[in-house]
Amino acid sequence: MKGRLLIAETPRHIGETVTIAGWVSVRRDHGKLIFLDIRDRSGSVQAIVLPSAGPAYEAAQEIRSEHVVAIEGLVKERPGGAEKAGSALGGIELEISAIRTISAPAETLPFEISVPELDLNLDTLLDHRTIALRNARLQAIFRIYSTMLSAYAARMRAADFLEIKTPKLVGSATEGGANFFTVNYFDRKAYLAQSPQFYKQAGISIFERVFEVGSVFRAEPHFTTRHVNEYVGLDAELGFISDFSEVMDELEATIKYVFAEIGKERASELALYGAALPADVPIPRLRLSEAVDILRESYGKEIEGGDIDAEGERMIGEYVKEKFGSDFVFLTHYPTALRPFYTMPSADDPSVTESFDLIYRGLEIASGGQRIHDYAQLSESIRSRGMNPDDFASYLDVFRYGCPPHGGWGLGSERIVQKLLGLGSIKEAILYPRDVKRLSP
Amino acid sequence: MKGRLLIAETPRHIGETVTIAGWVSVRRDHGKLIFLDIRDRSGSVQAIVLPSAGPAYEAAQEIRSEHVVAIEGLVKERPGGAEKAGSALGGIELEISAIRTISAPAETLPFEISVPELDLNLDTLLDHRTIALRNARLQAIFRIYSTMLSAYAARMRAADFLEIKTPKLVGSATEGGANFFTVNYFDRKAYLAQSPQFYKQAGISIFERVFEVGSVFRAEPHFTTRHVNEYVGLDAELGFISDFSEVMDELEATIKYVFAEIGKERASELALYGAALPADVPIPRLRLSEAVDILRESYGKEIEGGDIDAEGERMIGEYVKEKFGSDFVFLTHYPTALRPFYTMPSADDPSVTESFDLIYRGLEIASGGQRIHDYAQLSESIRSRGMNPDDFASYLDVFRYGCPPHGGWGLGSERIVQKLLGLGSIKEAILYPRDVKRLSP
Repeated sequence: MKGRLLIAETPRHIGETVTIAGWVSVRRDHGKLIFLDIRDRSGSVQAIVLPSAGPAYEAAQEIRSEHVVAIEGLVKERPGGAEKAGSALGGIELEISAIRTISAPAETLPFEISVPELDLNLDTLLDHRTIALRNARLQAIFRIYSTMLSAYAARMRAADFLEIKTPKLVGSATEGGANFFTVNYFDRKAYLAQSPQFYKQAGISIFERVFEVGSVFRAEPHFTTRHVNEYVGLDAELGFISDFSEVMDELEATIKYVFAEIGKERASELALYGAALPADVPIPRLRLSEAVDILRESYGKEIEGGDIDAEGERMIGEYVKEKFGSDFVFLTHYPTALRPFYTMPSADDPSVTESFDLIYRGLEIASGGQRIHDYAQLSESIRSRGMNPDDFASYLDVFRYGCPPHGGWGLGSERIVQKLLGLGSIKEAILYPRDVKRLSP
Repeated sequence: MKGRLLIAETPRHIGETVTIAGWVSVRRDHGKLIFLDIRDRSGSVQAIVLPSAGPAYEAAQEIRSEHVVAIEGLVKERPGGAEKAGSALGGIELEISAIRTISAPAETLPFEISVPELDLNLDTLLDHRTIALRNARLQAIFRIYSTMLSAYAARMRAADFLEIKTPKLVGSATEGGANFFTVNYFDRKAYLAQSPQFYKQAGISIFERVFEVGSVFRAEPHFTTRHVNEYVGLDAELGFISDFSEVMDELEATIKYVFAEIGKERASELALYGAALPADVPIPRLRLSEAVDILRESYGKEIEGGDIDAEGERMIGEYVKEKFGSDFVFLTHYPTALRPFYTMPSADDPSVTESFDLIYRGLEIASGGQRIHDYAQLSESIRSRGMNPDDFASYLDVFRYGCPPHGGWGLGSERIVQKLLGLGSIKEAILYPRDVKRLSP
């Protein structure tokens, strides 16, 4: 829209008549004066219209919440007493000389969105997702999310990773079977990719270092606060590693960079949640077996089957926060039986693997490790799990012709924001989440 | 890998002993001397080993193509006569003092990859995709592609667009029916999103300006050089436009920025294809009806049904190149009947729309325009196409409560690179393409 000034720029135009455009968040009629709070993508400002404004005053009688308007007005400093504390634009108001309705709502909103905090249960929030997101506090989640995406890609590129895009439609349910959605693909079946694992391993055999930001589909019928059936994965894979600690080093540097960028770019959004960035201390690395001992000794919790459950992750999160002042912990050396067939067993104890999970404030946000790069070893690992290497022929081609030692991670983008802001459910960190019951809006 | 030097950095270490790691592209045994061409992600360099190197010379006897090796050697300037023309690293060679095989191939490659240009038909190329991509010229495609992704996102952010991620699993085949893949989603059907159209329109009702880089799925049984069934869409949508020329302005600025960045970052990759960047001239904008006249008058081609076919697009591409010196053209004002129901009809002639296609070197790479933002008008447009607005309830919610005028585009990422490099098929510009017959590797 030509001639439009963003609201955030109005303080530089005091004493000038400008045109802004946006939504009416609130309209207050004080008899003689009408107040309109106008918001655009840059911020929010109060505008007033006096009876002396003539046609503009008449027009303001018809204006309601969520009307989209263009307003011409004089930018003024607000008298000190009327200043809104805590708002960068609180010191400014617009004295309206003209109003034009760009788009009038057909209906009034089913609930009030111009409140500091919407009080809706999760289902209502998600049923009315697009409307609810008119609320500034909810928008903050996705402004932070956008910064996270850009910071992740920037850090990966700076470390010489090439961005790749790999197919989400795959011909076989490769990684071992369950939890794939099936797709009717012309005259046969396809599957939705559960991870870009095989393709990013192929990627390092070509480009050494690759990353991908892409859709991940999991057909698991979960009903938890931390699972959804479609999410955005932040994947990376790097070749020529000496051991899997280099993978953790790279992930640690990346995650710290991402949080630092969020802190720089999104301070006001973080403030809406009273959210603190994680402490910038080295991330402790504990063997899973040590964590199991800690849970038993310090929390009286027995772990069955070798893997730590969600409660155990929360406890270990508390433990490392208290002991190391860290919001994160790497749990390492998961049992071979609990990891996929491509995971590198430890040389000194093949019952465990050169693998890790990264826990952030008690929630697993990433999983990774070193992969087997030797063709014969990999074929044997497939056989040892009761599978047939012939079913993995094109994947095995990656290793048949010379592949360097490598590893990588899969990082869940939404969980990062969920835990940073203390959101009750991962679904709040997704614009339009998908779960067993929810495929819309 | 600790202590490893990238090959591209070797010229700064002349006279020093360094360690590099990479793949052996070529091994040439000259009796006394053995030559090894080593490549890593940064470049390629020649290494030589003399009998006097002892164990390293013995080891070099066993080395074959595609072995992954770590080499310790003295960086030397190559004698002038032996310099390889055209290679930045041609002036350098490594005199090997130690070789370690990191990973030995189980087999030799099915075809030679260390040639300037692979001579494989498309099916062979794609069947052996991961191997073929060891070829430097093929890799260049994806280095350029990666730069394109980053430049697109950078330009969008600079223009204040928020990056969003929208679901690829949708509950209804909304945009009018055909060409959706169906997914077995727990106890019901889901569909794979054919575009993020509805979600990015919702996005502008929240954030004003949004963009998305995401997977797009089309169930069309095409067998052409320009179609695939899964691709990566570069989408954008912006609110508060005065008219749809602002959408074209934004897209034009974006595409020019993307090409400029590719030119800056990927000069050597472009050179492998003898590829020239598009001329930096204003993109001409022709009404579709004008283009139809031009085709008839200058090319003797009659257009049936209003839309221009692939041959017509090629001819118009030639025409604007000759007449305006432009590699691009916007074709505008497509007939209402040929555009989706949400497309804004022109106020002065509702039989055409405020829409466009962007043609690059004779191929449509983007489609866009202004959308209907008025609730009543949009409901009527749905009805006029014989559909029921009730089936679009949550989409219509976006417009029920006040939505600004807006428009946007969908841009095909792979076609940009295809036409820039003059690739015969779009499939060459995709790491692992998907078509009616191909779901692997």
